[in-house]
Amino acid sequence: MATQSNPLVDDDLVDFLLYSVLDAESLCELEGYRQHSKQTFDLYIDSVRRFSRQDLLPTYKPMDEEPPVFRDGRIHTHPALPALYERMIDLGVLTATRPESVGGQQMPMLIHTMASAYLMAANLSAYGYIGLTLGAGHLIEAFGSDEVKERFLARMYDGEWTGTMALTEPQAGSSLGDISTTATPTDDGHYLVKGSKIFISGADHGITDNVVNLTLARIKGAPEGTKGISLFAIPRLREEDGRLVPNDVTVAGMIHKIGWRGIPSLALEFGDEGDCRGWLVGEPNQGLRCMFQMMNEARIMVGVNGFATASAAYHEARLYALDRKQGRTPGRRNGEQVPIVEHADVRRMLLRQKAIVEGSLALLGTVSRYADVAAHGVSAEDRERADLLLNLLTPVAKTFPAERGFESNVLSVQIHGGYGYTSEYLPEAYMRDQKLNTIHEGTNGIQSMDLLGRQVMSKGGAPLRALADEIGRTVARAREAGCDPELCASLEEAVARVGTITMELGQRGMAGDADGMLGHSWDYLDMFATLVIGWQWLSMAAAARTASISDARKLGTDAAAQYWIRTEIPRISLLAQLCRSNEDSYIKAEADWF
Amino acid sequence: MATQSNPLVDDDLVDFLLYSVLDAESLCELEGYRQHSKQTFDLYIDSVRRFSRQDLLPTYKPMDEEPPVFRDGRIHTHPALPALYERMIDLGVLTATRPESVGGQQMPMLIHTMASAYLMAANLSAYGYIGLTLGAGHLIEAFGSDEVKERFLARMYDGEWTGTMALTEPQAGSSLGDISTTATPTDDGHYLVKGSKIFISGADHGITDNVVNLTLARIKGAPEGTKGISLFAIPRLREEDGRLVPNDVTVAGMIHKIGWRGIPSLALEFGDEGDCRGWLVGEPNQGLRCMFQMMNEARIMVGVNGFATASAAYHEARLYALDRKQGRTPGRRNGEQVPIVEHADVRRMLLRQKAIVEGSLALLGTVSRYADVAAHGVSAEDRERADLLLNLLTPVAKTFPAERGFESNVLSVQIHGGYGYTSEYLPEAYMRDQKLNTIHEGTNGIQSMDLLGRQVMSKGGAPLRALADEIGRTVARAREAGCDPELCASLEEAVARVGTITMELGQRGMAGDADGMLGHSWDYLDMFATLVIGWQWLSMAAAARTASISDARKLGTDAAAQYWIRTEIPRISLLAQLCRSNEDSYIKAEADWF
Repeated sequence: MATQSNPLVDDDLVDFLLYSVLDAESLCELEGYRQHSKQTFDLYIDSVRRFSRQDLLPTYKPMDEEPPVFRDGRIHTHPALPALYERMIDLGVLTATRPESVGGQQMPMLIHTMASAYLMAANLSAYGYIGLTLGAGHLIEAFGSDEVKERFLARMYDGEWTGTMALTEPQAGSSLGDISTTATPTDDGHYLVKGSKIFISGADHGITDNVVNLTLARIKGAPEGTKGISLFAIPRLREEDGRLVPNDVTVAGMIHKIGWRGIPSLALEFGDEGDCRGWLVGEPNQGLRCMFQMMNEARIMVGVNGFATASAAYHEARLYALDRKQGRTPGRRNGEQVPIVEHADVRRMLLRQKAIVEGSLALLGTVSRYADVAAHGVSAEDRERADLLLNLLTPVAKTFPAERGFESNVLSVQIHGGYGYTSEYLPEAYMRDQKLNTIHEGTNGIQSMDLLGRQVMSKGGAPLRALADEIGRTVARAREAGCDPELCASLEEAVARVGTITMELGQRGMAGDADGMLGHSWDYLDMFATLVIGWQWLSMAAAARTASISDARKLGTDAAAQYWIRTEIPRISLLAQLCRSNEDSYIKAEADWF
Repeated sequence: MATQSNPLVDDDLVDFLLYSVLDAESLCELEGYRQHSKQTFDLYIDSVRRFSRQDLLPTYKPMDEEPPVFRDGRIHTHPALPALYERMIDLGVLTATRPESVGGQQMPMLIHTMASAYLMAANLSAYGYIGLTLGAGHLIEAFGSDEVKERFLARMYDGEWTGTMALTEPQAGSSLGDISTTATPTDDGHYLVKGSKIFISGADHGITDNVVNLTLARIKGAPEGTKGISLFAIPRLREEDGRLVPNDVTVAGMIHKIGWRGIPSLALEFGDEGDCRGWLVGEPNQGLRCMFQMMNEARIMVGVNGFATASAAYHEARLYALDRKQGRTPGRRNGEQVPIVEHADVRRMLLRQKAIVEGSLALLGTVSRYADVAAHGVSAEDRERADLLLNLLTPVAKTFPAERGFESNVLSVQIHGGYGYTSEYLPEAYMRDQKLNTIHEGTNGIQSMDLLGRQVMSKGGAPLRALADEIGRTVARAREAGCDPELCASLEEAVARVGTITMELGQRGMAGDADGMLGHSWDYLDMFATLVIGWQWLSMAAAARTASISDARKLGTDAAAQYWIRTEIPRISLLAQLCRSNEDSYIKAEADWF
């Protein structure tokens, strides 16, 4: 093991992004964040990072090694969890972003993103219970009636009960229009729910007794498909005469996940005995609309998880490469063996990891900042523009850290050599954890169709114009700051290329050629993300010129920007060509060709 | 689970490669293989594939779930292993390629490669004991004195004892020049060995009582570095007065590997009590030379493992995609859900898997055939030429199936969605297994330096000229056969590009600029492998035109060839540009920039 301890996330990077790249302080001028300052931001992040390193990280491996057990109808989770959950509640992690009116600190999402990154990097499963409860609570906060809020919200936000999102059913998977759980209205204000759900994370555990499942179901007689789905709050235990009694929600089985092993993934049965009560959240048949309003946040949080998991592994690899001595560099065949960081091929892997990991956090910070401005910007124009950019970039913020983050995690295993292939070292566990992020909250393939089929084509192309504008400003700033003109020109060209191919694809779509437009949506996403990360690196390189950061960070930032723009940005022309071409190999393929 | 059972490797693919693409029958005209015919080849492969599907595959998951246990100084492996090993010995798997003079069947390596692929796809750990014993036995066969052969060889080849390769030491890793295990000569013909080894696979188990460890060590007083390393046969038990007694080889610990869990990876101590006897194999100080003569075969077998592991996972994904119903295709929003193979993005992943998996096997077949001609070709010219191509392509045959095979394995998890993330399904296990192949037998980074620094630059560029010639012939054949002229032209251009950049890099090397030549060796390997697999696909597409294969296989072959050549071959110009550029981001990077 490396002798230095893993910092999980680089503090200097976070400071650099917050205060030199993303001007977090300027958010405090917005109405919603007036109560905040650099001091409150730092205080919060500091307390979270200390807790993450000292308390959370030491519990990560034990939880990976002792996953939950399903016994006598209940789930038994790791004994360290209840105390950790309580500490996170005390630190204000759960309600950091929620308004003061419901007991929150009304922090910008940007700050929440940075703080969550430490928690997730330290122990993603332990944080998972917070994330799920926040998502479920937020749904009730946004769409619940006063009665429903009173019944559930305070007890979720104060840590007494946790929450889940219960969407998936065995026969439907990602196809939410096909869910078949039913809800029958009663005269008592609640519905009687019956059905099966699968892959429900954290629906039972040893942290708190009660869990509120935010569940999609069909009210009897509702329209078919996505238009007939409603949202319900279904607690594991319901209140009756001041006591908590079972609500006919049973755990039917536990899935053996290959990562995130501190949090159980469950199959649930609602209403086996005909007495499972659910409370409608929002209007009938508006369940998917409600859910999707929360999806941006959920997808960004998947991105943060992707970053965090890759970051912890990157630092593990970095420390190992500094410590582990093996072989000699070319031309120096004699003498002591050298740390493997001296080998160019190891530095190639480390720099690629750095470019992916830090590029991801920069993007997630940028997107979170748009979310803050979309919510609290001064003018309607500011808010709309930020909202456009937020929606456009969210599929990238979800997929890039997951997809390339996994690649980065794999490099961390590779740098560890034979040791990386053992469970005595951490990289293989991070690699397992990361894989989920390309699958959940909409697979990355589905995100690529959202990006190309929906986001870039919306509002007559306004989102992409706004992005091109932002990138143009970054390029101008980089030129002024004295960044390598070749890198600036390369990014400028890339924006133009992406704009052109997008217009061409849009025209195909308008001409009714859906296959021609969407057939290469995966390549489009890859191209788009490559551009976006190039933009983030140029932005960091420009800011680094004048920021008060160490010389090593300055040089490292320049090197990573150079690496990404010279190694990855050239792929954009190939990917655009693929999107344009009639390369139809898999589009035309029949099932029996495989 | 899919309803159809996994074929592991496609029989039609194997037949197509053997008899339509690689003309396996013509090997029977060579002196060494006269005793063989299509009939003996098919008989052998048939018996192996039946055993693989019926007997080996059912033991795969149990062995993954119950890895070996280290107790009271001994390793206890899965109880199914002894019978499986015996069956493989009976089938002639161990000695298939060995000469008749030592009891083998003298099969071409090409046939061995195809047969091994089934065994590895079914249960790579169970086959692992065979592979290790073959490697160790082959070393003794090639370099051992008559006395050493008599002492060990027959009992290894008849299945009574197994073998291992004991190279790695904790402080040396890949840097074999730094090994420090010592061997002191005695007057009794043997040496007394003392030292520690790590990552020794299969050095103890419950299959046979005795294990012969082919071990690198330094004879007292030998020169420093790689020039002072000798090879020894060190049995766990040695014969004394007709009895087997312990030879002072102890298991110091077991490493917890994340895959290949049926075969233990051990830390060994030789000579703790000063009584560990080793028998010299080959000349003193020639240990690495002996070892490297076997390395081609070992590296090709890693490639076969990479193929096999990716193939089993590909078929798992294919069957799942045909079976699993979810969602609807664009434009058909109503009606029954469709099998996910109907979604273009799923077909994209499947076709990518097919291109990688089948392209790998074609390459491995091609390389194995070169090995056969190098050993038994009619003229010295034939043999030399085949040897050139064999050496040139071996780093690609090792790395491509491992590197892209892992990517293919990851796609298999992705196609399975949430189910892919569970240990209830097989893809995650195959993904874990595959990862080792980028690490062992020389990491893929080391292979890239072997390819660029040694193979392509050797003999004044003759190997690359021979390859360009081979590819040229394939292109001509493809044109004649009526393959898409654009694909043919694209491959032709690619060969020229690779030739040009190789010459440029060679000139840098000759001018003494080692960094400028080798700095992008990883990109060079990627470029080179992309070309080589494009060549294989064009070769298959050409052969498919006239072969008697099903229409579905014809169309699938065309689609995969089109996919690879239009999607991957264009990357060659970017990669060549990177090799040519002064992109020095990671080359110049200092340790503290990370």
